[in-house]
Amino acid sequence: MSEPGQNRSYGSSYEKEAAALDAADELGELRARFVLDDTVYLDGNSLGALPRSVPGQVEDVVRRQWGSLRIRSWDESGWWTAPERIGDRIAPLVGAAPGQIVVGDSTSVNVFKAVVGAVRLANERRDARDAREGAGVRDEVLVDVTTFPTDGYIAASAARLTGCTLRPVAPADVPDALSGRTAAVLLNHVDYRTGRLHDLPSLTAAIRAAGAVSVWDLCHSAGALPVGLDEHGVDLAVGCTYKYLNGGPGSPAYLYVRRDHQSRFDSPLPGWNSHADPFGMTPDFTPAPGALRGRVGTPDILSMLALEAALEVWDDVSIEVLRAKSLALTDFFLQCVEAYVPGGAVEPVTPLAHAERGSQVSLRCADAGGVMRRLIERGVIGDFREPDILRFGFTPLYVGFGDAERAARVLGEMFS
Amino acid sequence: MSEPGQNRSYGSSYEKEAAALDAADELGELRARFVLDDTVYLDGNSLGALPRSVPGQVEDVVRRQWGSLRIRSWDESGWWTAPERIGDRIAPLVGAAPGQIVVGDSTSVNVFKAVVGAVRLANERRDARDAREGAGVRDEVLVDVTTFPTDGYIAASAARLTGCTLRPVAPADVPDALSGRTAAVLLNHVDYRTGRLHDLPSLTAAIRAAGAVSVWDLCHSAGALPVGLDEHGVDLAVGCTYKYLNGGPGSPAYLYVRRDHQSRFDSPLPGWNSHADPFGMTPDFTPAPGALRGRVGTPDILSMLALEAALEVWDDVSIEVLRAKSLALTDFFLQCVEAYVPGGAVEPVTPLAHAERGSQVSLRCADAGGVMRRLIERGVIGDFREPDILRFGFTPLYVGFGDAERAARVLGEMFS
Repeated sequence: MSEPGQNRSYGSSYEKEAAALDAADELGELRARFVLDDTVYLDGNSLGALPRSVPGQVEDVVRRQWGSLRIRSWDESGWWTAPERIGDRIAPLVGAAPGQIVVGDSTSVNVFKAVVGAVRLANERRDARDAREGAGVRDEVLVDVTTFPTDGYIAASAARLTGCTLRPVAPADVPDALSGRTAAVLLNHVDYRTGRLHDLPSLTAAIRAAGAVSVWDLCHSAGALPVGLDEHGVDLAVGCTYKYLNGGPGSPAYLYVRRDHQSRFDSPLPGWNSHADPFGMTPDFTPAPGALRGRVGTPDILSMLALEAALEVWDDVSIEVLRAKSLALTDFFLQCVEAYVPGGAVEPVTPLAHAERGSQVSLRCADAGGVMRRLIERGVIGDFREPDILRFGFTPLYVGFGDAERAARVLGEMFS
Repeated sequence: MSEPGQNRSYGSSYEKEAAALDAADELGELRARFVLDDTVYLDGNSLGALPRSVPGQVEDVVRRQWGSLRIRSWDESGWWTAPERIGDRIAPLVGAAPGQIVVGDSTSVNVFKAVVGAVRLANERRDARDAREGAGVRDEVLVDVTTFPTDGYIAASAARLTGCTLRPVAPADVPDALSGRTAAVLLNHVDYRTGRLHDLPSLTAAIRAAGAVSVWDLCHSAGALPVGLDEHGVDLAVGCTYKYLNGGPGSPAYLYVRRDHQSRFDSPLPGWNSHADPFGMTPDFTPAPGALRGRVGTPDILSMLALEAALEVWDDVSIEVLRAKSLALTDFFLQCVEAYVPGGAVEPVTPLAHAERGSQVSLRCADAGGVMRRLIERGVIGDFREPDILRFGFTPLYVGFGDAERAARVLGEMFS
């Protein structure tokens, strides 16, 4: 390892550039809304940092709402309506009008609701239209072959339970794979491993044109770049809230059901919270209107209201401005990596084209696990993904250009 | 309404008896472990009171574990193993040896895992045994006709997705309804509306003798009375943690999978957290050994660790002693009701026989909704269930005999 200062002089022009970029950053002051320290935190795509708005809210929920008001809080503290209220708060971040998102359950559980619901929607539509044309049942589910594993496992279960075949395909090959048999297509907006941003508008259009139903997983895009669910005609979408939305460890996920599908959305998890009259306690299930039919059981209030407080940091933030900063950050990081890291030591797997890049940079590297461990010891927090990927997430709300420069510099020192 | 004091003198012998019973109550000091006020809180069967051990733990989870350690907490703060660790903490309360319970998701989602899993277990067993005897597929699911609605809705969905017929039956009629077609039977240990305790040992034995798989919902029994899952040979069980276990609003539920079924338990929600090697990120699903295969997605840490702190109140509590107090409390409440409430105004629907009584007393009453509203105004907190039920839950950890006497006295005043 090099002596302290040795690489600092080598990298000094980038340090100066970083300082200038940070000084000009109109989002720079947002960092003060988070609890951070002197490490470089580039793992917000795994667990977002703690927003300062959260601890006080959680304390109030525990001590006053639960401890003192107890069951009265279901009404008086707005517990009962939290899933749809917080859904409406997420909606503008993913380009959705109100009334189409509910928060609750894990991403995996929401993938299950969405894929089973998609297969049913596709066949319900077929019953009304394709049947006249003699088309068969839609019994195939396509899934991103490079998907975050849980989506693939859950899609396989959904396919098995609905009598479908699951077929893994690369997202770029989806248009060719679509057929009259395709019921549902489950895709990731941004690949968790490579950071590749898939072309949501054109893939969604192709899926729709084939009479199939699209399900997008937004875990690695929501809160980092524009999604445009309504604009691009996405059918169903899910996402987590603990990455770029900073909701806290394991905070509840969300489900988007496009408005025109809601009356026909047939959830495989029709819990009492998705009933039109939950306290009627009737033996027959009548689904609630609108997005509420995506609810299942009693909402997890502590985590849900922590998330609601976390979303306050977005009040005056433009997703377009955020996206511009995200791309500038990852561009700058890639420049610094090229300058600081000896040639051949790392290889970017994240696409260089802006239209194909999420808000992370993944670098292929020998002994990536060991390198990441040493980076973390030196205060640069990213993560390692099997088999050979260093993953650096850039949350534009609180990561600055100085962080990008320092991360690349410390990485370079690993190889000098 | 009567003048203050009028009924107090009438009821004074019960007040004296209550004071004597409270003085002799060996569990009386447990009340100090909870945040309570001068109301009579008889709604712990809906939302348990706040244990004093919770707020400090939640603050530590938010500020230090999330805010400061961030992703390191998945290992260093024991986040990753919380579902099974907390499951093991619940285990002795429901008579289960370690390694058979995982915490996570809502009760509804766990009912879904359990019922689909039960149908698969029953048919997997059939494949190995009944098939030789020429038996057909087991394609019927029996469900308690008076069940808490979500269980019925979810069981209907599970039946639909597994090609089964759902048949609602009264629990007492289950033995007669069992046949070679029965795959799974979903029952409530205690009826949420009437407070009736069903005969878990004999019903479980009958279900097993018929070659079907039992699924018990423990929402209204766990933490209030002995369950004996292992002892009575229960196959699968689920329960919530926000009633008698005091985990907080919407705190995560749990799933019990009997040890001898675990290697064949085939969850319909195989999320990445139930994979044998979650961070291997392999496209193929290999289920984890043991109870862990009941996990699904990323655990909801804030709520889960609040629950863990809440469970500290049980450290030195005997469920048998608790049960004795529960029965004494509900006996005494029923006596006081008989003494204070004019004849015919209310009618107990909770069985008087101890073997058939949970830890609540439900009273049928005209205008039950209005009566409960006025009780709450007078500081007696129970709840109303459609169409005509006043529900009073007795959490033996923090409810005393004085509470029972006061509740009955105030109720009597409604009719005088």
